[in-house]
Amino acid sequence: MLRVALIGSTGYTALEVARLLTAHRGAELTVATSRSDEGKPLAEIHPSLAGRCDIALSQFEPDEIAKQADVAMCCLPHGASAQSVKDLVDAGMRVVDFSADFRLSSVELYEHWYGVKHPWPERVGNVVYGMPEFFAEQIATADVVANPGCYPTSAIMPLAPLVKAGLVDCQDIIVDSKSGVSGAGRSPKLGTLYCEANEQIAAYAIASHRHGPEMQDLIHRISGQSVEVLFTPHLTPMDRGILSTIYVRPTVAAGQTPVDIQAKMMDKLRETYADEPFIHVVDHLPSTKHVAMTNHVQMTVRVSGTEEAPGRAVIVCAIDNLTKGASGAAIQNMNVMFGLDPSEGL
Amino acid sequence: MLRVALIGSTGYTALEVARLLTAHRGAELTVATSRSDEGKPLAEIHPSLAGRCDIALSQFEPDEIAKQADVAMCCLPHGASAQSVKDLVDAGMRVVDFSADFRLSSVELYEHWYGVKHPWPERVGNVVYGMPEFFAEQIATADVVANPGCYPTSAIMPLAPLVKAGLVDCQDIIVDSKSGVSGAGRSPKLGTLYCEANEQIAAYAIASHRHGPEMQDLIHRISGQSVEVLFTPHLTPMDRGILSTIYVRPTVAAGQTPVDIQAKMMDKLRETYADEPFIHVVDHLPSTKHVAMTNHVQMTVRVSGTEEAPGRAVIVCAIDNLTKGASGAAIQNMNVMFGLDPSEGL
Amino acid sequence: MLRVALIGSTGYTALEVARLLTAHRGAELTVATSRSDEGKPLAEIHPSLAGRCDIALSQFEPDEIAKQADVAMCCLPHGASAQSVKDLVDAGMRVVDFSADFRLSSVELYEHWYGVKHPWPERVGNVVYGMPEFFAEQIATADVVANPGCYPTSAIMPLAPLVKAGLVDCQDIIVDSKSGVSGAGRSPKLGTLYCEANEQIAAYAIASHRHGPEMQDLIHRISGQSVEVLFTPHLTPMDRGILSTIYVRPTVAAGQTPVDIQAKMMDKLRETYADEPFIHVVDHLPSTKHVAMTNHVQMTVRVSGTEEAPGRAVIVCAIDNLTKGASGAAIQNMNVMFGLDPSEGL
Amino acid sequence: MLRVALIGSTGYTALEVARLLTAHRGAELTVATSRSDEGKPLAEIHPSLAGRCDIALSQFEPDEIAKQADVAMCCLPHGASAQSVKDLVDAGMRVVDFSADFRLSSVELYEHWYGVKHPWPERVGNVVYGMPEFFAEQIATADVVANPGCYPTSAIMPLAPLVKAGLVDCQDIIVDSKSGVSGAGRSPKLGTLYCEANEQIAAYAIASHRHGPEMQDLIHRISGQSVEVLFTPHLTPMDRGILSTIYVRPTVAAGQTPVDIQAKMMDKLRETYADEPFIHVVDHLPSTKHVAMTNHVQMTVRVSGTEEAPGRAVIVCAIDNLTKGASGAAIQNMNVMFGLDPSEGL
Repeated sequence: MLRVALIGSTGYTALEVARLLTAHRGAELTVATSRSDEGKPLAEIHPSLAGRCDIALSQFEPDEIAKQADVAMCCLPHGASAQSVKDLVDAGMRVVDFSADFRLSSVELYEHWYGVKHPWPERVGNVVYGMPEFFAEQIATADVVANPGCYPTSAIMPLAPLVKAGLVDCQDIIVDSKSGVSGAGRSPKLGTLYCEANEQIAAYAIASHRHGPEMQDLIHRISGQSVEVLFTPHLTPMDRGILSTIYVRPTVAAGQTPVDIQAKMMDKLRETYADEPFIHVVDHLPSTKHVAMTNHVQMTVRVSGTEEAPGRAVIVCAIDNLTKGASGAAIQNMNVMFGLDPSEGL
Repeated sequence: MLRVALIGSTGYTALEVARLLTAHRGAELTVATSRSDEGKPLAEIHPSLAGRCDIALSQFEPDEIAKQADVAMCCLPHGASAQSVKDLVDAGMRVVDFSADFRLSSVELYEHWYGVKHPWPERVGNVVYGMPEFFAEQIATADVVANPGCYPTSAIMPLAPLVKAGLVDCQDIIVDSKSGVSGAGRSPKLGTLYCEANEQIAAYAIASHRHGPEMQDLIHRISGQSVEVLFTPHLTPMDRGILSTIYVRPTVAAGQTPVDIQAKMMDKLRETYADEPFIHVVDHLPSTKHVAMTNHVQMTVRVSGTEEAPGRAVIVCAIDNLTKGASGAAIQNMNVMFGLDPSEGL
Repeated sequence: MLRVALIGSTGYTALEVARLLTAHRGAELTVATSRSDEGKPLAEIHPSLAGRCDIALSQFEPDEIAKQADVAMCCLPHGASAQSVKDLVDAGMRVVDFSADFRLSSVELYEHWYGVKHPWPERVGNVVYGMPEFFAEQIATADVVANPGCYPTSAIMPLAPLVKAGLVDCQDIIVDSKSGVSGAGRSPKLGTLYCEANEQIAAYAIASHRHGPEMQDLIHRISGQSVEVLFTPHLTPMDRGILSTIYVRPTVAAGQTPVDIQAKMMDKLRETYADEPFIHVVDHLPSTKHVAMTNHVQMTVRVSGTEEAPGRAVIVCAIDNLTKGASGAAIQNMNVMFGLDPSEGL
Repeated sequence: MLRVALIGSTGYTALEVARLLTAHRGAELTVATSRSDEGKPLAEIHPSLAGRCDIALSQFEPDEIAKQADVAMCCLPHGASAQSVKDLVDAGMRVVDFSADFRLSSVELYEHWYGVKHPWPERVGNVVYGMPEFFAEQIATADVVANPGCYPTSAIMPLAPLVKAGLVDCQDIIVDSKSGVSGAGRSPKLGTLYCEANEQIAAYAIASHRHGPEMQDLIHRISGQSVEVLFTPHLTPMDRGILSTIYVRPTVAAGQTPVDIQAKMMDKLRETYADEPFIHVVDHLPSTKHVAMTNHVQMTVRVSGTEEAPGRAVIVCAIDNLTKGASGAAIQNMNVMFGLDPSEGL
């Protein structure tokens, strides 16, 4: 039985890890840390675990944790996370890091977008990005895995194969994403109060959200192509889920109609993900509800315009932001790291 | 034009006052105070007012306010409110107080339930309760009006006339209320975060909520009867509205069937509210949606049991907690205080 | 591998069965029938199953089904269900029936409340009620199991042990329940449109809902006591979940305080469910969110009144109406019927 | 007092007309027709009107209606509407038509997109579009006004002035709109059931929604420029509101930075709408909640890219789909038609 430590246990991604582990046959939660709630039962912080999990919260002591667990799920905020990851690795553990601290390719990019000095710059650029659909081999042997961001997952999954195959104009990509409110975390803030977020949809951080450069960086890493992404996130009145509506210009050969182009793009995606248990290229228009509370991804393509003048392709991709967009991906990564069935517990 | 001052402007009841005043023909907002956001435009705190209200927030200075306004809507928390009300009255203003500070009949009852020393005990017990359906005459000349609590409004309106008419057992009343989340205020707290309150309903403060004694006290004041109320509030995933499902034992004369009893109770309510513009005794089962964003109240009665053995009566009453349950009632009170049409702006 | 047939596949309970079976290690879906959508993939009716379930819908032919499946999950409406259950049993299958057709103890009671002639009256009164917490032994060998109603589950679980132990007044029980909208089914109706059900809570079928007599009948069957239940269901703006707030009069011995009574009731419940994996007697106030998408039940008790005059007990019980209130209970029953781990897949 | 007839009274736009008229000082509802519910009180169809409106539903008889009303609000579906509008005009009435029947410039365009023969083709192309911000003079004397579509309102208001001023590339406009569920109407359909639409967001009718050509047609009519719009609507889990996120390429002069371009676009919008009571060009990012239940529009502009390489402009515009997107605009049109204050009742 693989023993799992949860580092930073009070947020929604931590709860989602705990929830998923209750159904996992090859791993169990043995440690859960919290700076603020040491000593309390984890189930007091998350009442849905009542009667289902009897772990008490402990302080973050890497050497102690390393005795009780094989792998750490590090759910700390960026900046704080990198140092803890280092401490856990130094104590001999393997770590899945939920923060953005090791996702980007360069320290410069990181420090520009996150506005903090990186605590472990040596490792930036040589930590694998935790998307087993593209990096399973490196994940299998990694000491640290940078678990992907939620919005980036919904954009990279459909875009990277199309960019790599040369099917879209790399300089003209718009990602219009709609996220459930859990993406904003569990700290009390005015903007995520029920009566502020309910019955409303709003854009935020237009062209300035940190997940934009993450999309660009990773699509580049996977496809070898530099891309320009204009990214607009929206807060949507629902608990979970991300729907990304992505506008691209297809590269069109003479005589190709929208139907031809659409088929070509769908084929490329189907071929890419043929053996992936969680990625589904579907004919219908996906909705967040179709994938809620699962690790599954649904995506499709529509091409606009007329036979004579094909227009933009509109790609729609739906994920659950807390599962495939965070904790489900982390469990999937853990499974790959430790040679378990990649779908176990998911 | 009546000039209105808003005291404590950042919460939902303050916004609701400002919203209602934009449509009021006889009153206008001239002052809005805030301790924390002095100098900012009110519309920055409440973006729905953008382009519709150009007042800037000021400090609480009673003498200054008295020069610029005729009446104060005091939206401060209990304890803090009583002192400000006193200061405003001393400065010569008339005040509608949204807090619970002057609602109860005795200082003892207040200090027992609110756990604070009352700052102006002399006035407790001689401030009119702002329910014009029962106290219009006193409201018309009052310097201070204690604006009713939201839950009490939904219980007192149907219960008081029935208790007064001797139609129900005074010692066996259960009020099971369901409130939208705005009732919990606009301060960021874990329990009112979207992802905590959405997709859930939960009871809280069972048999220990402060609105229980307020119901008992006011039903007594209106009907002359002592009553025992068991009150359970629930947080319900919606912005606005209170639905109270009230269980009472009808006093049954020999030979009366459930149909007879129901008719008698409905008749009494219809007769009581025949001339009231906002109170509607309806045949259908009311829902919060039927009264959302209005000052209207809908109520009905159903009597259970068989012809031979009539059972309990179930009363259902729906209000909007921010309008008739707070700011709408306050505007109605203001209209009565200043001799305007009681329905103006509502 | 146990082979499962889904009879009537287009509703929410059918989807929930299919969802739960995707994670079940000992059972798999082999047949799914539908009168209206024969030939279509099940995943077209329920797009969340895309890529996860490749069964096509077939007609209801009992002998064919019996060749391909060991157990049938019959998700048909009452009235229609009894005949199909009979046909399946005649073809040699074991059946979990989701309808109300075999839940009640007598044909008279059934025909009075459901207003239809019962198609298989011989079996009424000798089909086990599918609540393994009370009837596991009979379920283990049953050919037909009457899967419990959703509201009754939330009321019987806390009430039956307390009634049986003589801790409450049997003639004075009020069940005020709040259900998510999925309980109303998937057929398009005005009242369950998003814009009708959203942002509203409303009572319906006061003292006339069919689940009232089911509660009375089953509490009697479990406890041996006749009880009188006044039941009020409410439609609540959420997908899933039932919260029942239950008002009872405790039987009070001389000198007992509310604290004593509460402890006694909690102890009785804890003792009853000590070995049950899904029933949790908790100290906090349960909410529907704590049990959403799970087969778990959370319940607690609060006793009102003063030391001198203890008042009513308020019991709160939360379940997921589609899981423990329907399809999860059905899987649990199936597990017991076929000797699998009762918690498997749940 | 202007007398108003409601033609087709059972839907959400009809209810919104009735709601707004209860607060209108210069107009009152005198007739309400319904084919399916003749004789019933309007308040039985819309229980929120209980005690506030005592009109009974009548059949559609144009000559009778013309005796009792001065203006008709025609809330019928497209196709059916045109004939009724003709009948009402023939009977001597002035009409605000909520359908799409008279919005487009040509019969060809209409019949291509709506797939029906137009019943009154002579009038197509010479009915004024009911957007008083651009066509007040013609509305003032019109016999028929084509009330704008909801999505088009949210796109035309910000785009038309910018296109007219030559500030954006006319051939590269993407409108990504998110609408509340009330936009889909009140007829029971699977897709708008609560449990289908709640907790989900989904795109629909990508590049094939009828409001796309309406946007193109009207922007052309207002600005004189042909434009190409790629339009994607999304169903969003809320009752009311449309948020349109609009991607355009600004026309950039040498040396202009994103800040310069943004200022220029904002200035043009502010200048255009300086005297309009309902159109607000704001600095913050608008949300649907800021305009819910009002006739107000909030819009803003953000320009992406770097100083050296300015990118696309992202325009965000929020309206209430039932008020400014339908019934509020209709009341505004009626006010202009009859010489009342354009803001009366809004």
